[in-house]
Amino acid sequence: MTSRRDFLEKIAVSTIGLPFLSFANTACAEAEGPVADGKVLRVAIMGLGGYGTRVAEAMQSCTRAKLTGVISGTPSKIKDWQSKYNIPEKNCYNYENFDNIKNNPDIDAVYIITPNGLHKEQTIRVANAGKHVICEKPMANNARDGQEMVNACKAANVKLLIGYRIHFEPKTLEIVRMRMDGEFGKVKFFQGLSGFTIGDPKQWRLNKELAGGGALMDIGIYAINGSRYMIGEEPIWVTAQETKTDPAKFKDGVDETIQFQLGFPSGAVASCLSTYAMNNLDRFFLTAEKGYALLYPSTGYGPIEGETHKGKLMHPHKTHQTVQMDEMAAIIFDDKKPVVPVDGQEGVKDMKIIDAIYEATRSGKSVDIRM
Amino acid sequence: MTSRRDFLEKIAVSTIGLPFLSFANTACAEAEGPVADGKVLRVAIMGLGGYGTRVAEAMQSCTRAKLTGVISGTPSKIKDWQSKYNIPEKNCYNYENFDNIKNNPDIDAVYIITPNGLHKEQTIRVANAGKHVICEKPMANNARDGQEMVNACKAANVKLLIGYRIHFEPKTLEIVRMRMDGEFGKVKFFQGLSGFTIGDPKQWRLNKELAGGGALMDIGIYAINGSRYMIGEEPIWVTAQETKTDPAKFKDGVDETIQFQLGFPSGAVASCLSTYAMNNLDRFFLTAEKGYALLYPSTGYGPIEGETHKGKLMHPHKTHQTVQMDEMAAIIFDDKKPVVPVDGQEGVKDMKIIDAIYEATRSGKSVDIRM
Repeated sequence: MTSRRDFLEKIAVSTIGLPFLSFANTACAEAEGPVADGKVLRVAIMGLGGYGTRVAEAMQSCTRAKLTGVISGTPSKIKDWQSKYNIPEKNCYNYENFDNIKNNPDIDAVYIITPNGLHKEQTIRVANAGKHVICEKPMANNARDGQEMVNACKAANVKLLIGYRIHFEPKTLEIVRMRMDGEFGKVKFFQGLSGFTIGDPKQWRLNKELAGGGALMDIGIYAINGSRYMIGEEPIWVTAQETKTDPAKFKDGVDETIQFQLGFPSGAVASCLSTYAMNNLDRFFLTAEKGYALLYPSTGYGPIEGETHKGKLMHPHKTHQTVQMDEMAAIIFDDKKPVVPVDGQEGVKDMKIIDAIYEATRSGKSVDIRM
Repeated sequence: MTSRRDFLEKIAVSTIGLPFLSFANTACAEAEGPVADGKVLRVAIMGLGGYGTRVAEAMQSCTRAKLTGVISGTPSKIKDWQSKYNIPEKNCYNYENFDNIKNNPDIDAVYIITPNGLHKEQTIRVANAGKHVICEKPMANNARDGQEMVNACKAANVKLLIGYRIHFEPKTLEIVRMRMDGEFGKVKFFQGLSGFTIGDPKQWRLNKELAGGGALMDIGIYAINGSRYMIGEEPIWVTAQETKTDPAKFKDGVDETIQFQLGFPSGAVASCLSTYAMNNLDRFFLTAEKGYALLYPSTGYGPIEGETHKGKLMHPHKTHQTVQMDEMAAIIFDDKKPVVPVDGQEGVKDMKIIDAIYEATRSGKSVDIRM
């Protein structure tokens, strides 16, 4: 069995030790927009686990984002991060006192990287503290909670962004550009396979309360989100079929494997697989009137590999989270509009589809999701 | 738009002009079993269209099968074939008089390569004439007709085989062997994408009466059949979703695009696409506990390309229909048991799934197909 991190790293080539590649990518990002210039986003990370650590590392290469604070329930972790990232005591919080962040001028935004079921309350508290929120995906346990988060951030006049790092990935964006420019003609079919074999059965990702579900929330969401940015439409119907081979590991409400299908207004269709019980599936395929696009791997942390009918995509890899945080600084401070949205409403769209997929697995019927 | 033949040939490299390759393959086939020895199957082809022509050409390289007769409604075609294949007048029939084939000692079997909707009556007439039947897939318009064909052949004491050429394809068979030998461990997921953009809207394949349906009957059946031999189980449930973007071309009862999903007793699942409205989809993918298998192209007429977690499959290509006809001679005369069945009951199994897929598209519900 593979742990989640093992899987996502298996296909990752760290950019550490590849300074030239990294430099080339920075130049590339600069060429596309004024990301390197402008106000630096000072970020506190809430949740110092595996992914929080990855984001912190990636931010060290950012030009417009900087880690300035931490929020954690584990004092020893805070200590480690303080020394590693030179974070002063006054920028450290726990889950009881982090509302006080409102009085901290060193922190512009909080990146919430905690179990899904905690996102809503935490987002609302951060918003009420007057700080921008970056929230890891899935944004919440369901669309209703997600919408509450959007509303709270709007009311507090702060921005809410969801951690969709792939929305800034250059090969992905090239395919989106080609689609927008009509180079595929009419899009016909998208296939998204997203899954891996999950390890430790005691982790929060297999806890219904904390995760909000199972594989679909964590990894299947990539195929959902991918179907939307690859096809460029919002789905109008959903069907889904759940299969559970290990009910001891995957308890009630925690999905192991779900196949789901989406229909789009143009007649394009998507066929997707979400699973915690198969080895390393990470593949997007789009076929269209005039050609095709393939991303494989499509969403892992490492270099995304892609090709279209026009040839192999050669855009250099840069650590996704580095690009994401620089771009999010520009979105927050300069109102930059990303090609593929990363705002709270984008998160709610995915959550509505997730809700519909779960409904379809229960009812066995097609669910109308015209938004 | 691509015609059916264009598509299937696009990925085909003719073995004509490649005598060494052909020679090597013959040697390979001989090494595997006594196909080259034994009684020669003398075959009449019924239906002298594009695929009939392909089969006739391929049979010229057979060691155990020989074209000795024709059945056609078009006298000019019969004349052409007579001169090309040196077929005597007495072995030529039309659709009115072919029952007389029972008195012809030069013909052992009839290969029916006509529109699907005609297969049942033609099969029963050939069986009643005491000749073995090879019937192109899909064997009939539905499972009930297919079962009648099986019953008629049984009663007449003749064999009924279905034209599943891929069941003799060596890369496919290597994957089946690996699966049977446990080299994949537990099989988890099969994906079959089968489709192309069909041309001429007036062809019989788009006529409900003659074709029995649309893409599913003609090309989607490959994914159905593939899911069974790749997974090695019979499905227990089916769900399906139909999409039609061109109702002028695809009339009532003629399917353009169907996504379908199959569930198997072990918990393995299949996700398939059948379409007449997308370019050149021909891909099988199997993922399992210990590895994976990929066939791409998986069912086209040309060389099948494949790989597994153990590496690329290097089995040489031999014209599928040549191998098929030699093997079918051994099945008919020597009672050889193929690894993947090609008998009438195998055809009925596919037809039951096709019936269930159509039912599922209509009802929107999961259809139980425990066989």
